[in-house]
Amino acid sequence: MEIERQFLVEKLPPLPEKFAFLAQGYISLEPEIRIRQIGESQYFLTVKRGAGLVREEWETAISFQEFGNLKERLYPGTCMIRKKRYRLPLPDGLIAELHVHAGHLMGFNYVEVEFPDVESAQAFIPPSWFGREVTEDARFSYGLLAQENGLEILQQILQKEHINDQ
Amino acid sequence: MEIERQFLVEKLPPLPEKFAFLAQGYISLEPEIRIRQIGESQYFLTVKRGAGLVREEWETAISFQEFGNLKERLYPGTCMIRKKRYRLPLPDGLIAELHVHAGHLMGFNYVEVEFPDVESAQAFIPPSWFGREVTEDARFSYGLLAQENGLEILQQILQKEHINDQ
Repeated sequence: MEIERQFLVEKLPPLPEKFAFLAQGYISLEPEIRIRQIGESQYFLTVKRGAGLVREEWETAISFQEFGNLKERLYPGTCMIRKKRYRLPLPDGLIAELHVHAGHLMGFNYVEVEFPDVESAQAFIPPSWFGREVTEDARFSYGLLAQENGLEILQQILQKEHINDQ
Repeated sequence: MEIERQFLVEKLPPLPEKFAFLAQGYISLEPEIRIRQIGESQYFLTVKRGAGLVREEWETAISFQEFGNLKERLYPGTCMIRKKRYRLPLPDGLIAELHVHAGHLMGFNYVEVEFPDVESAQAFIPPSWFGREVTEDARFSYGLLAQENGLEILQQILQKEHINDQ
């Protein structure tokens, strides 16, 4: 089980020099079957089920060949997501994992924090650069954002909210 | 880790009355991503890696809806495999899992035995109704047999061997 909270990030904090290049894509959206490349030589297959704060997650390292095979099987209409992942230390030994997108999602950024238990997740006070929380908001799933027009979908969601706020 | 040996079965042993209906299909062949329905209401997603005696395997129960979603994503050219699974007790507390196919693989049957460790797998003496062993023979993978012309592929493999035997 994985206990995480996710937040949008509108204005990036000062970025550390170190980051990892990530590329990921989706074979299936429900359940979520994801492939991910980290850096130049690490490949993973991950299955996630459920939504919100607590999710079931399983991951295994796969070969370059297996990654290539699965890359040919992306969910129709979706494409690989490319991003930089930064790790920023927070108080209490927590780590903010900041995802800064390139490619078709350029301009969309979010941060996630993983917690050891539900209590610490609920007690967490987000730093000021964290934007609005999207942990329980299925509309911000990568399943949607992996769509070729993901950024457009995202803008429509945010625009609708803006109208609702008025 | 899973330690198994598989054997072809040409002549079925006396069958018990009890069996389970299984339907399974492949989202990906390498790595193996499999969906399986057991009976009327159980659905599973399984990932297997490696080949031969010792394989890495991970499995989770999924919903009817998730099963339906993944059924739309079968590997191109493959179809659902339908079969009855019988469990026959063997000496030493081992179980022979006999798979009797319907549908496009009707006539093809095999048996597999799972072992607690490599030593007992190697010490195993197959009952007389077990046919030739295919544990290390990648040609008998379900990846191949799930192809729409799986039975034809199978017959070609067996025929070639027959010629080689002469």
